[in-house]
Amino acid sequence: MENLIQKIKKLNTKLYNNDFLLTWDKSQDEIKQVVYIAELLKMMREKNISPRCFDSGLAVSMFRDQSTRTRFSFSSAANLLGLEVQDFDESKSQVGHGETVRETANMISFLTDVIGIRDDLYMGHGHKYMLEVASALDDGFKNGVLPQRPGIVNLQCDIDHPTQSLADLMHLKQYFGSLENLKGKKIAMTWAHSPSYGKPLSVPQGIIGLMTRFGMDIKLAYPKGYELMPEVISIAKEQSNKSGGSFEILDTMDEAFVDADIVYPKSWAPFNIMQERAELYAKGDNAGLKGLEQKGLKMNEAFSDWECDDEKMKLTKAGKALYMHCLPADITGVSCEKGEVQKEVFEKYRLDTYREAAYKPYVIASMILNNKYKDPAQLLADIILDNPIRVL
Amino acid sequence: MENLIQKIKKLNTKLYNNDFLLTWDKSQDEIKQVVYIAELLKMMREKNISPRCFDSGLAVSMFRDQSTRTRFSFSSAANLLGLEVQDFDESKSQVGHGETVRETANMISFLTDVIGIRDDLYMGHGHKYMLEVASALDDGFKNGVLPQRPGIVNLQCDIDHPTQSLADLMHLKQYFGSLENLKGKKIAMTWAHSPSYGKPLSVPQGIIGLMTRFGMDIKLAYPKGYELMPEVISIAKEQSNKSGGSFEILDTMDEAFVDADIVYPKSWAPFNIMQERAELYAKGDNAGLKGLEQKGLKMNEAFSDWECDDEKMKLTKAGKALYMHCLPADITGVSCEKGEVQKEVFEKYRLDTYREAAYKPYVIASMILNNKYKDPAQLLADIILDNPIRVL
Amino acid sequence: MENLIQKIKKLNTKLYNNDFLLTWDKSQDEIKQVVYIAELLKMMREKNISPRCFDSGLAVSMFRDQSTRTRFSFSSAANLLGLEVQDFDESKSQVGHGETVRETANMISFLTDVIGIRDDLYMGHGHKYMLEVASALDDGFKNGVLPQRPGIVNLQCDIDHPTQSLADLMHLKQYFGSLENLKGKKIAMTWAHSPSYGKPLSVPQGIIGLMTRFGMDIKLAYPKGYELMPEVISIAKEQSNKSGGSFEILDTMDEAFVDADIVYPKSWAPFNIMQERAELYAKGDNAGLKGLEQKGLKMNEAFSDWECDDEKMKLTKAGKALYMHCLPADITGVSCEKGEVQKEVFEKYRLDTYREAAYKPYVIASMILNNKYKDPAQLLADIILDNPIRVL
Repeated sequence: MENLIQKIKKLNTKLYNNDFLLTWDKSQDEIKQVVYIAELLKMMREKNISPRCFDSGLAVSMFRDQSTRTRFSFSSAANLLGLEVQDFDESKSQVGHGETVRETANMISFLTDVIGIRDDLYMGHGHKYMLEVASALDDGFKNGVLPQRPGIVNLQCDIDHPTQSLADLMHLKQYFGSLENLKGKKIAMTWAHSPSYGKPLSVPQGIIGLMTRFGMDIKLAYPKGYELMPEVISIAKEQSNKSGGSFEILDTMDEAFVDADIVYPKSWAPFNIMQERAELYAKGDNAGLKGLEQKGLKMNEAFSDWECDDEKMKLTKAGKALYMHCLPADITGVSCEKGEVQKEVFEKYRLDTYREAAYKPYVIASMILNNKYKDPAQLLADIILDNPIRVL
Repeated sequence: MENLIQKIKKLNTKLYNNDFLLTWDKSQDEIKQVVYIAELLKMMREKNISPRCFDSGLAVSMFRDQSTRTRFSFSSAANLLGLEVQDFDESKSQVGHGETVRETANMISFLTDVIGIRDDLYMGHGHKYMLEVASALDDGFKNGVLPQRPGIVNLQCDIDHPTQSLADLMHLKQYFGSLENLKGKKIAMTWAHSPSYGKPLSVPQGIIGLMTRFGMDIKLAYPKGYELMPEVISIAKEQSNKSGGSFEILDTMDEAFVDADIVYPKSWAPFNIMQERAELYAKGDNAGLKGLEQKGLKMNEAFSDWECDDEKMKLTKAGKALYMHCLPADITGVSCEKGEVQKEVFEKYRLDTYREAAYKPYVIASMILNNKYKDPAQLLADIILDNPIRVL
Repeated sequence: MENLIQKIKKLNTKLYNNDFLLTWDKSQDEIKQVVYIAELLKMMREKNISPRCFDSGLAVSMFRDQSTRTRFSFSSAANLLGLEVQDFDESKSQVGHGETVRETANMISFLTDVIGIRDDLYMGHGHKYMLEVASALDDGFKNGVLPQRPGIVNLQCDIDHPTQSLADLMHLKQYFGSLENLKGKKIAMTWAHSPSYGKPLSVPQGIIGLMTRFGMDIKLAYPKGYELMPEVISIAKEQSNKSGGSFEILDTMDEAFVDADIVYPKSWAPFNIMQERAELYAKGDNAGLKGLEQKGLKMNEAFSDWECDDEKMKLTKAGKALYMHCLPADITGVSCEKGEVQKEVFEKYRLDTYREAAYKPYVIASMILNNKYKDPAQLLADIILDNPIRVL
């Protein structure tokens, strides 16, 4: 742990008092610091050292979409540091009574240290919503309404899913030995078939937006119509150039899989459908939204061969690429008739995907610590010296 | 903080082990003690001193109506003192299986230190319900069912909204410099138009029931049909006489606003409608309740000129009265077409209303401390000496 | 407390790292240890000693049926030990997105120390579900997905309701002075009429599955059609033989009540209906489930004289048997027109039933401690020496 602390101390970062919304807004040192602090927290807990640094304080969660993993990861992270989760449930609030975002953001923040937000359903809305909350909190703090400025953690928006991509990065670091070892590794981030509708684009965008920074060779593949947001593609290209990796867009799963070290086959919704959906949502056109669902599902059907099966896995490096998924996966014959991945393939990598998910609580705890402490490495060094026990 | 502690020590109070249901059931010293302890808690937290005094224990919340502010204020208050909130959600309980209030009150209280209740929807019901819970808890404690008697905090009933009115009082104390300075200040507590239905009478009743104790000149104004409960009017008159203030009922907003130091324009439902509603509710007449809503909304429409606009604000003292609201306000052109307050007026005072709301967590924490500790000032003095840190 | 600790130290148990699913899977020493640790925790709290032994950690609750008592008991128990409750609400999770039990169990457990599950609606399903979760957790822990193996506490399944039956046992121990004094006491566990449908069989099964171990004379009585699961009957008979008690099945309430020291009249659903219900549920036949409800209710009607009234109570030993119920009871004229117990009888024993329920938080806390600590008696002895205060 001493080594890790020394490594962190050499980094040059401005995470303190800054929200974590998009990974590409953060410097390379900042990304590393989030990863290293997460690793440190994981080690401490495994050695039964309690990293608790809050005696009280709320961690507010706002989920505008369903969640298991992220909900429990956020709870676990907050609890580990001593914060109590208070869920903001819009249906039990006065939001229906015409309360503005600006007002709500302040009303839930009087004694709140951190706010985690998932808002991923509507393209063009989720990230904007977080910025709106952030600006309201700035305003409240500046004007003496709030005794502290709660940090915001993006628990998935329409553009990025940083707690997922960073957990994925930690998994890759563990699997390949170091961040440096990722250089030159081939990762196939591909669309996959699913019988479900409206899955956000934020996971593939998060992956290409983060992994392009580590000199990896990224193959992004999807059927025509399933494009990602052009601004994220630009960022991925730029970062790839800078990091000495490569970034290529393909239109078959097979091509992307050839010689891959890692495959990440994952369904998402068609770009146009997501755009139309956001427009209908903005207009409050519920009938239109219903009709759109049928259109989206029909479109998916045409690409049911985009399934990660044994044959495709054979195309990867020595037939042994690491399979990744943010979970839950649509597994053919298990959770659906025809899905993203063949049962046998998923089963082989099942425990790997669970271990991948297991990093998320530590990523979130790290984001919180980095937001609330100027020198989180020193904080943890002091705690380690003190050696407080988590379980007696 | 030392001065404040000395001031509290001179007060003669019986808050210990007594529920906080209606402000007018409390003596002047008791009201002051709640305010001062709240101020002390606020200072401590702002100095990063943790006032935590419970190592474990539940704070149960029962919300029989929607809430944002009060829900989060209660959570924050409980958490600040070391209690964990457990929400009692009737829909997930066995209440539908015919469980009595008497039984439920005991079943949720075995290891519970405080219960916060919001029950404001039906006139003649909310306060009674709290008394029923209180009596069940007395019975359970007396007979060895409960190892402690949980204190009850009224988070809004049909008659009073003490956590709101006391937060409002703290806001006024801060604004005018002291409680003594409130003497002679003119406050216009007026009805205002809203397109919504069934707002409780407890906020205006809470305001006239508290502010009349401080020698203020109260102008209560509402259109015919929007009377308040006669018993609260009596109390307001009596207190006003005793405190050397005045209490007058008017029937135009303009008259009330003239020369006012403070204006509190806030919608509430017509008295008769609320009475009829409570009767229909008692009979379980859901069709009747639906019909009544239309009647209530129609009635409001006739008084759409009861809006706090720039013109009316000019009537107040130097045109600069302090605007107050319990939030969320119905803002014309923002949360509704035609509401309680003009957008420009609200915007001018927006941050003031947020600061007003910010006192609520401390008011609730103070009520809890005063209920659970014989000498809360000494408790906090001891904690301050110890200097426990809230955030490392 | 010293005596109790010494008594526990002499027991030979394997509760550490073992889930608590069915009382009859546990040895007599193990049952005693759960009871004694629960008593110790109760004493400690009553002396204001905080038994908190977790600095952080989640206690996950999964309620697949409504609950008040058990929900609050689980919260209270977790909070007493320092764990924070995070409820797993299937409707807000990704379970609807095809997530498997195996996966969900791991995803909610990364930083979780204990999971409490209520799954009592479908015969043949609840206990199986808990075993499935247990096996998934074993798998996750063994393979490095989970840094700890969360213990499982059965908060009621289709077969047993151990937190209830052990709270009942503690109540009897207190009432009759010792576990040894239960030898030879007559307990009438009888069906009773209720206008409600689908009540699980786990309470009566839990009672006969536990009380037969203490040499008690058990009279189980029910109308034809209301049989219990044959495997539980076998266990009860076997245990009864071994403990030197007796076990008899009768078909009238009166016969069971004759000379009883304790009566436990409690409704449950007909065996065949519960079987058919589980089959329809497995098939997803919602229309069938609706129809079945009518059939079940009709069947109950035929036995409306199975009510515990004053006349029947006169048949018991000196007319003064202890009345027990897991609550809420269907009380004639209070919660229903014609129910399990006469108003006057219930009222006489009301506080006794509340005291009976009051043991549950300590039973659950004891189960958690016994699962997580090799030597919980020593742990508590150490804490008592340290004397940490619960409420300052």
